Amino acid sequence: MSTAAANSRELAHPDRTEIRLEGVLHALSDPMRLNIVCALAMEERELACSFFELPVSKSTSTHHFRVLRESGVIQQVYRGTAKMSGLRRDDLEALFPGLLEAILGAADLQAGRG
Amino acid sequence: MSTAAANSRELAHPDRTEIRLEGVLHALSDPMRLNIVCALAMEERELACSFFELPVSKSTSTHHFRVLRESGVIQQVYRGTAKMSGLRRDDLEALFPGLLEAILGAADLQAGRG
Repeated sequence: MSTAAANSRELAHPDRTEIRLEGVLHALSDPMRLNIVCALAMEERELACSFFELPVSKSTSTHHFRVLRESGVIQQVYRGTAKMSGLRRDDLEALFPGLLEAILGAADLQAGRG
Repeated sequence: MSTAAANSRELAHPDRTEIRLEGVLHALSDPMRLNIVCALAMEERELACSFFELPVSKSTSTHHFRVLRESGVIQQVYRGTAKMSGLRRDDLEALFPGLLEAILGAADLQAGRG
């Protein structure tokens, strides 16, 4: 974790070189986290955690976002009182070309099949 | 699980329609299971579990193969005394076009980076 957390409002992220395929796949193997990532991909912008209205407790929601952040799938930053999340598309594409698109496409197909 | 296990030597597999993306990603999120799948893809044939010489106990090895089978990533069948495993490439490609190749490619790139 080379992004030093200078204070509690700075969140730790793995460097691009620290992102592991297994961690990315694990992060995306949970339906709720996969939904979050699909929404971030569709919106193509940073979103506040509150945008998602997940049907879980605040702490569970925070856990899901933390797993996504610590695996390198998303970046998170505080803007005022909001914690904003965004996909690390460029990092993932540089490391694993086509992977994110394949997973998003698969999620879309599965959702279409119900 | 519609492949009925008529006896203890028949192993249960999910139908193609029962395979879930989250389950596939979870199965591949473990380094050992990812290695098994890469080897099956490279060899392009059924392999006996004993082929892999995994550095874990027999029961842990059996667990990893079971996770891969129950998620729909591999099929397993007894041939004599050997339990043979093969990738369900056609099923995965039909459900999630390009997904397996993207993950195998990503694993290959990561291995190359060491």
